[in-house]
Amino acid sequence: MDSGNTAWMLMACALVLFMTPGLAFFYGGLVRNRNVLSTIMLSFMAMAVVSIVWVLWGYSLAFGDGNELIGDFSVLGLEGLAGDDLLFATFQMMFAIITPALITGAIVERFKFTTYLIFLVLWITLVYAPICHWVWAGNGWIFDMGALDFAGGTVVHINAGVAAIAAAQLVGKRRNPAPEPHDVLGAAILWFGWFGFNAGSGLAANEQAVSAFIVTNIAAATAALTWGLLSHIQTGRMSAIGVATGAVAGLVAITPASGFVGVMGALGVGFGAGILCYFAVLLRAKTNLDDALDVAAVHGMGGLWGALATGIFAVEAIGGTAGLIEGNAEIMGTQAIAVLATIGYSLVVTAIILKVLDLIPGLGLRAAETSEDQGLDLAMHGERGYVSDGAD
Amino acid sequence: MDSGNTAWMLMACALVLFMTPGLAFFYGGLVRNRNVLSTIMLSFMAMAVVSIVWVLWGYSLAFGDGNELIGDFSVLGLEGLAGDDLLFATFQMMFAIITPALITGAIVERFKFTTYLIFLVLWITLVYAPICHWVWAGNGWIFDMGALDFAGGTVVHINAGVAAIAAAQLVGKRRNPAPEPHDVLGAAILWFGWFGFNAGSGLAANEQAVSAFIVTNIAAATAALTWGLLSHIQTGRMSAIGVATGAVAGLVAITPASGFVGVMGALGVGFGAGILCYFAVLLRAKTNLDDALDVAAVHGMGGLWGALATGIFAVEAIGGTAGLIEGNAEIMGTQAIAVLATIGYSLVVTAIILKVLDLIPGLGLRAAETSEDQGLDLAMHGERGYVSDGAD
Amino acid sequence: MDSGNTAWMLMACALVLFMTPGLAFFYGGLVRNRNVLSTIMLSFMAMAVVSIVWVLWGYSLAFGDGNELIGDFSVLGLEGLAGDDLLFATFQMMFAIITPALITGAIVERFKFTTYLIFLVLWITLVYAPICHWVWAGNGWIFDMGALDFAGGTVVHINAGVAAIAAAQLVGKRRNPAPEPHDVLGAAILWFGWFGFNAGSGLAANEQAVSAFIVTNIAAATAALTWGLLSHIQTGRMSAIGVATGAVAGLVAITPASGFVGVMGALGVGFGAGILCYFAVLLRAKTNLDDALDVAAVHGMGGLWGALATGIFAVEAIGGTAGLIEGNAEIMGTQAIAVLATIGYSLVVTAIILKVLDLIPGLGLRAAETSEDQGLDLAMHGERGYVSDGAD
Repeated sequence: MDSGNTAWMLMACALVLFMTPGLAFFYGGLVRNRNVLSTIMLSFMAMAVVSIVWVLWGYSLAFGDGNELIGDFSVLGLEGLAGDDLLFATFQMMFAIITPALITGAIVERFKFTTYLIFLVLWITLVYAPICHWVWAGNGWIFDMGALDFAGGTVVHINAGVAAIAAAQLVGKRRNPAPEPHDVLGAAILWFGWFGFNAGSGLAANEQAVSAFIVTNIAAATAALTWGLLSHIQTGRMSAIGVATGAVAGLVAITPASGFVGVMGALGVGFGAGILCYFAVLLRAKTNLDDALDVAAVHGMGGLWGALATGIFAVEAIGGTAGLIEGNAEIMGTQAIAVLATIGYSLVVTAIILKVLDLIPGLGLRAAETSEDQGLDLAMHGERGYVSDGAD
Repeated sequence: MDSGNTAWMLMACALVLFMTPGLAFFYGGLVRNRNVLSTIMLSFMAMAVVSIVWVLWGYSLAFGDGNELIGDFSVLGLEGLAGDDLLFATFQMMFAIITPALITGAIVERFKFTTYLIFLVLWITLVYAPICHWVWAGNGWIFDMGALDFAGGTVVHINAGVAAIAAAQLVGKRRNPAPEPHDVLGAAILWFGWFGFNAGSGLAANEQAVSAFIVTNIAAATAALTWGLLSHIQTGRMSAIGVATGAVAGLVAITPASGFVGVMGALGVGFGAGILCYFAVLLRAKTNLDDALDVAAVHGMGGLWGALATGIFAVEAIGGTAGLIEGNAEIMGTQAIAVLATIGYSLVVTAIILKVLDLIPGLGLRAAETSEDQGLDLAMHGERGYVSDGAD
Repeated sequence: MDSGNTAWMLMACALVLFMTPGLAFFYGGLVRNRNVLSTIMLSFMAMAVVSIVWVLWGYSLAFGDGNELIGDFSVLGLEGLAGDDLLFATFQMMFAIITPALITGAIVERFKFTTYLIFLVLWITLVYAPICHWVWAGNGWIFDMGALDFAGGTVVHINAGVAAIAAAQLVGKRRNPAPEPHDVLGAAILWFGWFGFNAGSGLAANEQAVSAFIVTNIAAATAALTWGLLSHIQTGRMSAIGVATGAVAGLVAITPASGFVGVMGALGVGFGAGILCYFAVLLRAKTNLDDALDVAAVHGMGGLWGALATGIFAVEAIGGTAGLIEGNAEIMGTQAIAVLATIGYSLVVTAIILKVLDLIPGLGLRAAETSEDQGLDLAMHGERGYVSDGAD
């Protein structure tokens, strides 16, 4: 093993793992006080449950040889993996953890906790592992088609964004309106961890990693500023939550592009993400869909734009593939197929999983009305961590 | 110096340092609002005081040549150290910082602050440095015996857990019951930093580091889930604090084992830690010992189980030493001796230090009753950082 | 590219970026609840705006060939940069982000937000880029003079501290007194990130990086303890905010020295920083200057002391240049010139920028009185994130 590459990848693994608590606090800061702890728990349990599923069979399904659609059972329990292969499995584990955690933004404040634990196991097995195989395994059909997804625009973000739509629809709307948001720490941890996510995805500490690192920062900054300015134009005041959400949208959009585009491309990716995701949030608010923390508008739309923008802005000298601007129109069709396949599969299979869970006696998707009114922190976890009650 | 190994170890040093504020917030989230700042201060002062003690004489006592029981004064002030040696001293400094900070969970909300500062100096000198020498110095008697402790099961966790018992006993019970816990951010920072703690303990970015990294994550996840399920079985609701505490218990238990066991061993280590530490907490609650944040039950019991589990699950192909399952029964005795020596020495010497401090006029262990009732934040530090008083 | 050096520098970039949200929370924890979000936003917007300015023209002005006073337009848009050069531009971007964010501590709770955004652009262009060129570009006049500034004592800290004086003076005093501080998490993130700041400034994972790392920790610890003891001597209680501020002062002071001094020098740097910055805060409180979070006293005075202390304690065997103690008296004059040039230029040009912004119709420096009374969170951003209103 090259010690320098190993050093960077170990750190990248830690950074990506750290994104999930970052997400927990970002989401936790956007719900009612009485649901903060339960919102955080949804992400924490992804760390606990997915780590185990991934090690036992998830990695094998995603990266075992298998065929073009799915892996196999050849590396159950990570049997026989060591060195670079084990490091790759670890890095991929962190991606598998955060993806279902992203979905939870759609279902906070009313999803049934025990059902969620089972959902995690099924979703990683039946939705995440197959799509991951398609896009990143050497014999996956999307990979073989030549689609570009450096760090997970389809596998992670479109996938989570679409699953969020299915989940929000099936669990239904919250009974009570959400109060004002109250924290932005989580977004900063996400930004920090995203350097591992993107600049680690080339699996080495080299020129491409450096390029992926800086374009990640540029896209986050540009989308944050764009979103902030849009909120200022529309309301006369620049929303802090808007700036934080804009940064996340930019990070989402640059994810598939990060190994392929340059500085100017990153400005374009971030600017587009800021505009498109901003209006996607406004549009969603006019629908009946209670995607509470706008997972579809940020991760779905952001991932969609990112996948197409990768095709538009790809620079051959950086990632080995030319994009539309450099005259390669064909890549746009390839990217579109990857996007559509991910959307279709994730939407249908996530919906089936949830529908089945809803019908199983003793499970069901929705917390009791009394639990929802009381707040899930107390109802599901017996704790009221974030409620100000004057006690000292 | 190999730049890759150096890169990883620099980062590992930063990660381990970051664990101590993580611990500060984990502990701070488990006490009454009026004591949050004073609880955080106990960890912060370990960063301030131990850094200085370590540089001036602590490292020299722990890793100076000396004899099988203790180092010497040959590297006072880190005299003459550079390169890899200086990096090792830095990495070890971060371990010396967090160990007494762990103890403070037992004494929050009533320990006298000025006495604590003196305790830090004495404890690092008289308890930590000797045990560190026994276990990790090339001529330490436990090291020479062939005991396995990759990242500090004995030196850090059993040591802190046992010292916590002595400290909780000698300072006595709190006057007021503790309220509900209110934060879990700290546990996430601990999990993040622990990758440096364990995967840095081989001092290189190599195969063993990768293995130590993934088993760390697996054990944390498994223990978190186990603890959560136990709380669900017992109370019908999965405690968020329980899941966070379970993760820490898993991280503690995998610490000594992380360079020696594989994926399946890590599942076993985490599962055992979740069960044993969960019941240790229940058991402690039935005693008269006010180990407020259950340092003994989590770090003591977790470290004890980890030390034995290292003997059970060690895989020769990973860390060079076979364990019980691979037919090496002898290792269990060696591990047991290391554990017993640490327990005995830490318990006796910590108790003596505290007893002496208690008897010195003007010191004493216990804050005044009025201070305790008022809250230590105001009484000891003149600040009331975390009390919600409606001010804006 | 050397993979080990690249690994460390990628991580150092991430760490330095993470310091800015750390600063946001440190500053946010020191203002009234109704201004926390707006305080955080000042730092977040530096991440958004400065990233873009730096990429488009800031880096080119700072590090383009140019002459001894300023760069040129040869690398606009980072045109043509790759590999180590691009990595250097990324690392430097993170420094450019945090420097104006540091200034904001002086102007919190009453500065006009939209004016601030324009100030960011002008200040990076007209103040930061030139001084950065002087000190760190190969043909900068201060660099050529042989002044020592390893990681930004002049460029970052004196610069920000002096600009803070100009800004606090021109925006005027706050109408309402500040309440008690309520958080110290930010200081811990700063300490963590500072390892990247200082130990990354040699651009490699080598002996000098290791030395810079440990002296950073020692100085932070020593200054934290010194400040804490001074507060204890003066008030009978050790202030938690004081200890946190002391740590930051120590980190500031060791910044220019970190690649040049040894362990004993670091103790001296930290001790001096603790004393000098502590009294600078007391002194400032007696003036009429409402430098709200004491940027001048901590970063200005800390940077000044650090620059001189670098001259005093520099060890030839560590950084290639002898200091006063090793008999090189001349270095003190060089350091003094670098300090004075930075102070003079930053003070004058910052004041001119602010004066001009104050006179432009529709801009101005000061928020309306009603906005200030209402709190800037609601007035500027339409959100009241951190106000406890009993809602749950």
